[in-house]
Amino acid sequence: MYQFSERSQQVQAKLQSFMDEHIYPNEENYARQLREAEDRWAPLPLMEELKTRARAAGLWNLFIPPGLAEFADHDGFSNFDYAPLAETMGRVLWSPEVFNCSAPDTGNMEVFMKYGTEAQQAKWLTPLLKGEIRSAYAMTEPQVASSDATNVELRIERDGEEWVLNGRKWFTSNAMHTRTAIFIVMGKSDPNNENRHLQQSQVLVPRETPGVEVMRALTTLGYDDAPLGHAEMRFTDVRVPLENMLLGEGRGFEIAQGRLGPGRIHHCMRLIGIAQRSLELACQRVVSRTTFGRTLDRHQSVREEISKSYSEIEMARLLVLKTCARMDEVGPKGAMDLIAASKTSVPIMMQTVIDRCMQMHGAGGLTEDYCMAEGFNYARWCRQADGPDQVHQMALGKMVINRFSEA
Amino acid sequence: MYQFSERSQQVQAKLQSFMDEHIYPNEENYARQLREAEDRWAPLPLMEELKTRARAAGLWNLFIPPGLAEFADHDGFSNFDYAPLAETMGRVLWSPEVFNCSAPDTGNMEVFMKYGTEAQQAKWLTPLLKGEIRSAYAMTEPQVASSDATNVELRIERDGEEWVLNGRKWFTSNAMHTRTAIFIVMGKSDPNNENRHLQQSQVLVPRETPGVEVMRALTTLGYDDAPLGHAEMRFTDVRVPLENMLLGEGRGFEIAQGRLGPGRIHHCMRLIGIAQRSLELACQRVVSRTTFGRTLDRHQSVREEISKSYSEIEMARLLVLKTCARMDEVGPKGAMDLIAASKTSVPIMMQTVIDRCMQMHGAGGLTEDYCMAEGFNYARWCRQADGPDQVHQMALGKMVINRFSEA
Amino acid sequence: MYQFSERSQQVQAKLQSFMDEHIYPNEENYARQLREAEDRWAPLPLMEELKTRARAAGLWNLFIPPGLAEFADHDGFSNFDYAPLAETMGRVLWSPEVFNCSAPDTGNMEVFMKYGTEAQQAKWLTPLLKGEIRSAYAMTEPQVASSDATNVELRIERDGEEWVLNGRKWFTSNAMHTRTAIFIVMGKSDPNNENRHLQQSQVLVPRETPGVEVMRALTTLGYDDAPLGHAEMRFTDVRVPLENMLLGEGRGFEIAQGRLGPGRIHHCMRLIGIAQRSLELACQRVVSRTTFGRTLDRHQSVREEISKSYSEIEMARLLVLKTCARMDEVGPKGAMDLIAASKTSVPIMMQTVIDRCMQMHGAGGLTEDYCMAEGFNYARWCRQADGPDQVHQMALGKMVINRFSEA
Amino acid sequence: MYQFSERSQQVQAKLQSFMDEHIYPNEENYARQLREAEDRWAPLPLMEELKTRARAAGLWNLFIPPGLAEFADHDGFSNFDYAPLAETMGRVLWSPEVFNCSAPDTGNMEVFMKYGTEAQQAKWLTPLLKGEIRSAYAMTEPQVASSDATNVELRIERDGEEWVLNGRKWFTSNAMHTRTAIFIVMGKSDPNNENRHLQQSQVLVPRETPGVEVMRALTTLGYDDAPLGHAEMRFTDVRVPLENMLLGEGRGFEIAQGRLGPGRIHHCMRLIGIAQRSLELACQRVVSRTTFGRTLDRHQSVREEISKSYSEIEMARLLVLKTCARMDEVGPKGAMDLIAASKTSVPIMMQTVIDRCMQMHGAGGLTEDYCMAEGFNYARWCRQADGPDQVHQMALGKMVINRFSEA
Repeated sequence: MYQFSERSQQVQAKLQSFMDEHIYPNEENYARQLREAEDRWAPLPLMEELKTRARAAGLWNLFIPPGLAEFADHDGFSNFDYAPLAETMGRVLWSPEVFNCSAPDTGNMEVFMKYGTEAQQAKWLTPLLKGEIRSAYAMTEPQVASSDATNVELRIERDGEEWVLNGRKWFTSNAMHTRTAIFIVMGKSDPNNENRHLQQSQVLVPRETPGVEVMRALTTLGYDDAPLGHAEMRFTDVRVPLENMLLGEGRGFEIAQGRLGPGRIHHCMRLIGIAQRSLELACQRVVSRTTFGRTLDRHQSVREEISKSYSEIEMARLLVLKTCARMDEVGPKGAMDLIAASKTSVPIMMQTVIDRCMQMHGAGGLTEDYCMAEGFNYARWCRQADGPDQVHQMALGKMVINRFSEA
Repeated sequence: MYQFSERSQQVQAKLQSFMDEHIYPNEENYARQLREAEDRWAPLPLMEELKTRARAAGLWNLFIPPGLAEFADHDGFSNFDYAPLAETMGRVLWSPEVFNCSAPDTGNMEVFMKYGTEAQQAKWLTPLLKGEIRSAYAMTEPQVASSDATNVELRIERDGEEWVLNGRKWFTSNAMHTRTAIFIVMGKSDPNNENRHLQQSQVLVPRETPGVEVMRALTTLGYDDAPLGHAEMRFTDVRVPLENMLLGEGRGFEIAQGRLGPGRIHHCMRLIGIAQRSLELACQRVVSRTTFGRTLDRHQSVREEISKSYSEIEMARLLVLKTCARMDEVGPKGAMDLIAASKTSVPIMMQTVIDRCMQMHGAGGLTEDYCMAEGFNYARWCRQADGPDQVHQMALGKMVINRFSEA
Repeated sequence: MYQFSERSQQVQAKLQSFMDEHIYPNEENYARQLREAEDRWAPLPLMEELKTRARAAGLWNLFIPPGLAEFADHDGFSNFDYAPLAETMGRVLWSPEVFNCSAPDTGNMEVFMKYGTEAQQAKWLTPLLKGEIRSAYAMTEPQVASSDATNVELRIERDGEEWVLNGRKWFTSNAMHTRTAIFIVMGKSDPNNENRHLQQSQVLVPRETPGVEVMRALTTLGYDDAPLGHAEMRFTDVRVPLENMLLGEGRGFEIAQGRLGPGRIHHCMRLIGIAQRSLELACQRVVSRTTFGRTLDRHQSVREEISKSYSEIEMARLLVLKTCARMDEVGPKGAMDLIAASKTSVPIMMQTVIDRCMQMHGAGGLTEDYCMAEGFNYARWCRQADGPDQVHQMALGKMVINRFSEA
Repeated sequence: MYQFSERSQQVQAKLQSFMDEHIYPNEENYARQLREAEDRWAPLPLMEELKTRARAAGLWNLFIPPGLAEFADHDGFSNFDYAPLAETMGRVLWSPEVFNCSAPDTGNMEVFMKYGTEAQQAKWLTPLLKGEIRSAYAMTEPQVASSDATNVELRIERDGEEWVLNGRKWFTSNAMHTRTAIFIVMGKSDPNNENRHLQQSQVLVPRETPGVEVMRALTTLGYDDAPLGHAEMRFTDVRVPLENMLLGEGRGFEIAQGRLGPGRIHHCMRLIGIAQRSLELACQRVVSRTTFGRTLDRHQSVREEISKSYSEIEMARLLVLKTCARMDEVGPKGAMDLIAASKTSVPIMMQTVIDRCMQMHGAGGLTEDYCMAEGFNYARWCRQADGPDQVHQMALGKMVINRFSEA
């Protein structure tokens, strides 16, 4: 029915070998280094070593699409061709960073590629592409429903040759990471503009700027996602030069829109990877555990649940692939319906799949001994990331109703 | 991501025009003719008229695959190319017959094409292909769990130059139809054979044979599916000549296996069609009804349900298309996992989608004023047709466990 | 935790004996009489015979509460005490009529008892209490969302000494029944009244009044519910004398509110009965069917589904009992939250339970050979009856939010 | 429908006042003390202070039933009367310890009360009842499916005047707590006994015994549940005197059975408390957040979800209360069906309720800023605690099938 490009197939094979040789055998090692780290937010030695290897293997910045291939060491991968790569990386939650393909940096790099000036690119994009620094995107605010971008309250005011920022943010991913050097901050520069989509701007704020305060690391379902981390932050009279404005005053909403399409789909791809791996773990588990005189796989209910999980993973994968193909063909805007369908269907389905697989593992399935609990948290979190599902369902529902109710 | 062949696209367009011109405008007419018919099991004049038109338009026997194109007026359609055609026909439950593409005749014709002798084909296949007669497949028995074919109890015994049949069947679709001329009957000719899959044979029994008794029409959720009908039958000392054996003694199980793959997928395709139509009806409904001061489409819960339904239909469609492509590539046997995934996922999803759409129509949604209630019954029925979902989940679960638990 | 009154327990025992002796053994007989009836809407001889028996046994008009016991041959049953009786009757869908406890007559009789004049009672209530006639309640209209009573459009206009009715109704239950003698019709007598809840009136319309037209019997999921029937009706210049107004002009909304509380709960009670019976049938089925070498009850998935069904029935029953107890204590108005909780939870849960039980019966489970398919239809229908669940969830959600969000 | 005893009502009122005065206002304080603790497994000063207060207020050891009231400062509370108390405590996950009512100590104290010798009681039960020490119950083993108690592998061998223990355990709750002084350890003392339920014994092992090794704290969904903790443990040649045997050799299975009934139900009660509180938080949230021009509570989907959650909490509560009443009446053994129904229905329902409430809080709902994420983890965990739900569904399903399939 569909075929990945020869180039994608080659890289898929190479990536799988790399996973087999360097990632899976290092999972315990990674967990131990993190557990024993003096600073949970500092880069782990293992990660740095693996990044060097991956880059040498040509498995680097694979997320860059053909249209931006000038920034890559390769010809770019379409969303469609990237999907199986992201799925494979998703099987180990921390592995995308090994290939410089981890959120939110990928989205931030795209912002720099598409909207940055040459000076901005030289200063921030270049080290990001090399994996030398990390970046954060400060969008969500604790005091308002930020899925409605017009609610954003952080103020960006001009004072002479500087922009002055005041406000709060949270869920700023990567903010805890000690390597994170640059924040892209969304705020309101023109709150009284009649056009509510021209009130926002996005400004670049280096980490060390006075007034930037990382208040605390947030957890979701008990996970702090170290060394990445999701932070609550305060910006108090933070001053940056005028040239730190991205794209132009009042264009913050536009950047936000452009950034989010592929990002949501990358989350879905990775979730499919971790769900698929959970299913495989469950299959191995059920043939090796015995209760009441039979191995678990002999129970009809186990087979039914494996069967459902297999089917649901396959359907999720196909939906994501179609979404990718559509994005490749007509751009994210033309694929809004499928992006919303993926965003609102895949995480909740994969959460259910992983939940079943955990249950088949007994109490141990909920622990850090398997990748499942953290994958479950990732899936649960994605029902909120980039806006709660309900907001996207509202938009998609409206679109579908319009499409079919017209005369 | 995928593209139908040019030929399929052309026929799709032609079929849609035919639906617009001849089918949708005749839905009330069809319902009235059936309601007012003296004999609910006799062919309706409207149906005969539409069949003539469809055949003239080249929209005839579209289910025939390329490998059997010698029996068609066209070059055959792959499962993949046929899928959108079957989906379109599925939008009106009675319309597949118009194009001589209705179950169980399509499956029976395939049996004749693949396993019939020339004499059997001349006598039964030729009029079936012309739409002059209809046929039935007598497999399920009331007293045993027939999803396990080794449970079948109808006896087929040789007596001189004849086979003698004794036993009961039910859910013999088409058996009520006055045009049905031939029954393919599954039974046990060698019940003591050590190989449980060589005990069965399939025998051709003309309707008028003495001892063939159609006892009653069964309903499912209140529907008798006239003029098709699902009958309970008794075979008492039914005698047919030896040449009425299909393929050979002891090969009944083999025929049953060969028959079922595409059939299950055709059901799925048609269900997607009726679910898609239900969604479209719901979209039209919610913009035209007002409660508590707002049209229904302004309710967030309505949008969420439309959004979910859209996503689920799309995922079901993609799964079916992939299953078709796989069947085309490697045959039904190699696609067993995907066939089982479709068979066990699509009907229940489509049942849920249609249920939501009915609910948005108020009490009227449950009535004969819309196609939804009957579509709901069709979806519910498909969770039993060709074996209860649980049996297929058992098989799929086992396959998946084996695949991923091997060293 | 709770105990039914001694009187209720005695009647429960008597009712169960009656079911064992007269109802279950007559189920096939009933089905045959209906199937072979010349007029599906006429009373069946069996029903008349059983009514006589039930009345003689003191199992008559059990729905009448203590406050209205003057109309009964007994001291009245509280909602709580009536619950197990209604559940038992619910096990056979047609049996409530045997005890003169069937909808919509019970609700209509309550309307007469509470709001009727002595003359109205003498003329209509007396024969209803004796089971000699039946009645219908014409509320829902095809062209508007009638769950919002202010949408009702049937016009009731005064012309001299008469009310003149013009408009359409549908889902008028009992309207098809040949014994139905009286319609209670809801309409707008004062459509411009500023208070939207004073625009409606309810008027008594004898069946034979000129201009009353029963247009057709509606089906839901294929069932016409004969001999009860849900009809579409037209009222064209229907004239009735002024004294046929119920309670008073402009008080139609008030009557509608008063009528609905217990009715919704009676539906729930009966649904629990049919779900419980489906579960019992499933238990008997799974020990008697063999697939792949084991009886069905040996399959873990079967046990899980039986277990879930048992738990869900029990929870539904407890919710209904609590609702009854609350209604008995503070009246339907004070129990609005629990009535809405029951109305929106019980039917959908019981639908799921019955669906599982049908599935365990194979294809036969969907047919008329068991009570399940019709019970499934009843449950599905109750998600619309007395307004779609969504309307009640809206109200309950609002109530709960208010309760817990207040300072 | 039901009423708590006057004494229970009085204590409920007192407990609610205590929660209002001392628990809710200290939630942030508690979180801070734990976050800043040098040793996460040591008792927090706040806890010690609150325990003193609770004991002074007579809110102490409320879990003790009437039959064991000799061990309490009160007359004992039936399971039924205790239910609303446990629900109230459940609203703050750490609060049951304040009242010396926290798992697993309550279950362990019951074991001592019912099965301990006077010497064992003097040494361990007395300080437990005073809240001076804590205890652990070492049952589950990492290498076998421990829901089937006959799988247990830890060896208990007699060597002269001592029992010698060798084996592994995990999910030993409280094992991390620095105050935990005594372990009740389940193992096999007679693995070859033909009666598989006589192979097990339970032995008392003081924490400081050589060979007892707490290997690590396990997390579930990212939570370590400090200072309680769920540990993995190793027992290597652990020697205890013969008198440390509980009840008698070979009676380990019997003790395990006796311990588990009420414990499972206590979990359910507390889960209902945290779910109810989540619902109340959601109600407060939705009136205070605005998206797209309306507060969240104006969205129909929000109301539907609040409505469903309210109904599900109520049904869960009623099921638990009925289970309690039945246990009070006939003992846990006679209430096995209802205990299994509660155990397998309540946690998963409450998990769903809490999930919805989290979602209404946006991303923040998943964080430590609310009690919901931890409550969600508790609910998820309870689907495994005391055996996976599937094991109990198997037993309940079998019981129900037997009950209704008998002639």
